[in-house]
Amino acid sequence: MSKPKGFEKPAGVRDYLPFAAEKLRAIERSVLDCMAGWGYRQIMTPTMEYYDTVGVASSTSDRKLFKLLNNRGTTIVLRSDMTAPIARVVSSMLKEEPLPLRLSYHANVFRAIEEEAGREAEFFQTGVELVGDDSPEADAEVVALAVASLKAAGVKSFKIALGHVGFLNGLLEEAIPGREEDREILKEGLLHRDYVGYRETLAGLALSERQREELEGILRLRGGKEICKQALELSGNPLAREAVQHLSAVWDALEDYGVARHVMIDLTMIGDFSYYTGMTFEGYAAELGFPVCSGGRYDNLLQQFGRPAPATGFALKTSRILDGVEGIDVVRELPLLLQYDAANRKRAFAEAERLRAEGRSVILRRVEEPAEKLGETVAKEIKSGPLGPAYGEIRTYTSF
Amino acid sequence: MSKPKGFEKPAGVRDYLPFAAEKLRAIERSVLDCMAGWGYRQIMTPTMEYYDTVGVASSTSDRKLFKLLNNRGTTIVLRSDMTAPIARVVSSMLKEEPLPLRLSYHANVFRAIEEEAGREAEFFQTGVELVGDDSPEADAEVVALAVASLKAAGVKSFKIALGHVGFLNGLLEEAIPGREEDREILKEGLLHRDYVGYRETLAGLALSERQREELEGILRLRGGKEICKQALELSGNPLAREAVQHLSAVWDALEDYGVARHVMIDLTMIGDFSYYTGMTFEGYAAELGFPVCSGGRYDNLLQQFGRPAPATGFALKTSRILDGVEGIDVVRELPLLLQYDAANRKRAFAEAERLRAEGRSVILRRVEEPAEKLGETVAKEIKSGPLGPAYGEIRTYTSF
Repeated sequence: MSKPKGFEKPAGVRDYLPFAAEKLRAIERSVLDCMAGWGYRQIMTPTMEYYDTVGVASSTSDRKLFKLLNNRGTTIVLRSDMTAPIARVVSSMLKEEPLPLRLSYHANVFRAIEEEAGREAEFFQTGVELVGDDSPEADAEVVALAVASLKAAGVKSFKIALGHVGFLNGLLEEAIPGREEDREILKEGLLHRDYVGYRETLAGLALSERQREELEGILRLRGGKEICKQALELSGNPLAREAVQHLSAVWDALEDYGVARHVMIDLTMIGDFSYYTGMTFEGYAAELGFPVCSGGRYDNLLQQFGRPAPATGFALKTSRILDGVEGIDVVRELPLLLQYDAANRKRAFAEAERLRAEGRSVILRRVEEPAEKLGETVAKEIKSGPLGPAYGEIRTYTSF
Repeated sequence: MSKPKGFEKPAGVRDYLPFAAEKLRAIERSVLDCMAGWGYRQIMTPTMEYYDTVGVASSTSDRKLFKLLNNRGTTIVLRSDMTAPIARVVSSMLKEEPLPLRLSYHANVFRAIEEEAGREAEFFQTGVELVGDDSPEADAEVVALAVASLKAAGVKSFKIALGHVGFLNGLLEEAIPGREEDREILKEGLLHRDYVGYRETLAGLALSERQREELEGILRLRGGKEICKQALELSGNPLAREAVQHLSAVWDALEDYGVARHVMIDLTMIGDFSYYTGMTFEGYAAELGFPVCSGGRYDNLLQQFGRPAPATGFALKTSRILDGVEGIDVVRELPLLLQYDAANRKRAFAEAERLRAEGRSVILRRVEEPAEKLGETVAKEIKSGPLGPAYGEIRTYTSF
């Protein structure tokens, strides 16, 4: 195996040069400020967690976890999401804090990737967790906050797809009872939105006409609130019906929030996190073919850390938003270049201090040549370089 | 080996609960804004780097690097500082960018720790690199910016100790030529500021009276600009004299910046980074026994990545500042709790939206009981919990 060259970095990770870093920071700030407006307070957790605690509790498949051994021989993982670490903190350092608890975060998370895939191994998420409230209003709050957060991130046109893991589980249990393996194959097709594959799987299964119709009917369950009514007609299973009634109540609250126009019900949707127990949702931007946010209810995770409590939340896929949508405009004030010679140095430094106190950005440069000769060098600098112009204005304090 | 318990996290890492996270964020924002005022633009690099590139170039000793293998069997490290990664970027993605280049960062860095030590394995640094300028003014700029950054971080009383690796190297070479091993032992004592040990080592070495005096004399070289004059008298070595003359020019520029009162010259100081080649400095807060910032000149690092260029910079030890000094006050506006019943939900949501647009933080809660009964619960919530009061004001929109 050859050594990597000096300029190389590992597969799936990236450098954010100033333009990208400034835009990412602007999105981060805008979204966290939005979340603070809804009463969510920031929390930060370590990059490294124990595999046996947070690693096992996380929804990321084992082979996608970055693992290392610490010097005691214990397996450590790089966090793959923030939900499991926050569940750990809520159950330990915050165990005396009354519920409901509203927490927000902006953090980088890690996924080990397959050799051939061009996927990101490290990326940013900005999200919230609402712990200790199992009401439809709590689910509606996080969906409405996801809408507000996407707007704060500069995503102009988007749609939230709203589903419920209970509906599909109930319907499949009712339609093909006891056939666990067939159910998993069908769910796998829905998870990857492979509707052709789903239909082919159905065709290959030994099913009655009624069963086939019921299972094909799922694919039509995408639209507005009327979908809830259709779903209730499709299934008599108590689990499925309860799920639909909950979703219907969430929808009503979203109407009261005035955000229902951003939302569609999609009962074919399965959240791709194994810990979801109820409502799940995904946000799609008009420009992009993949989700820019995802979330859902996870009522069983906290008890794994010793503090049973219902919880719901979401995360924006902030790195994707940065790359994929025009987003918020970052207006960058170009620095002022203040040139001085030895005799004027003190005066130049004092002037720079004064301008900086006024909020200006000032770059200082000592020069040894007359201004007209310098003009050429500086004119070149102003134009060139991938970072764009270095200065917006030049002032020269020299005696020659 | 027993499994870690659910609430445990690895040694040396920490959770930042909301109060600490909010304060850390405030310091981060204030310091990065200060750096932007001096023309420094933010850059972000990945958490993971190749061991053979950035890992080897970093100043962290091998046993303190966190290492893992990727799925191609290549050794990866968690970054131990930002200087080496930025040198990699300046030499690759920014190789067309004209110099000098001013870059800033706020980042978490990692150090594997010895079993017994209570040291941090992950902590935050906020710093700058000034690449492509070898003048005394460039060194003075980063020292003066360190002073401004410490103030921006809320550190009220501090002192910067300024040294130069060239002086000690030159003096030791002159005093005990060819005795590499003895020189290393003496430097080790100075690095750990173990002056008693340094004297004991001297006593144990075979030295002439003159040599002993010269080497003991180093310990007195701490003070104001007069130290430069004393140092020139102590050594005739060209390397040592050149170092002192450079430091003297840096001091003059710091006087022009008006920050010399925060600075002392300390020629006993060796920066603890192996890549330093010139001036080094450390900042000490009045409240703390360890440095809150460190920096220096590293003119040989960039060439390891293929773009030879002089460079100078520093990093604040932001996690230490957060813990150790009173710092900047974070004034937190307590959220308003807006309670509503089913009949008033839409009205409450609209009111919350209006208040949030005004910059208020609003928490919504559906209630089913008359307000007087609720009063007790809410009063309890307002007082209790490690995160402090949950609400500052309550408004109730109910029909009962």
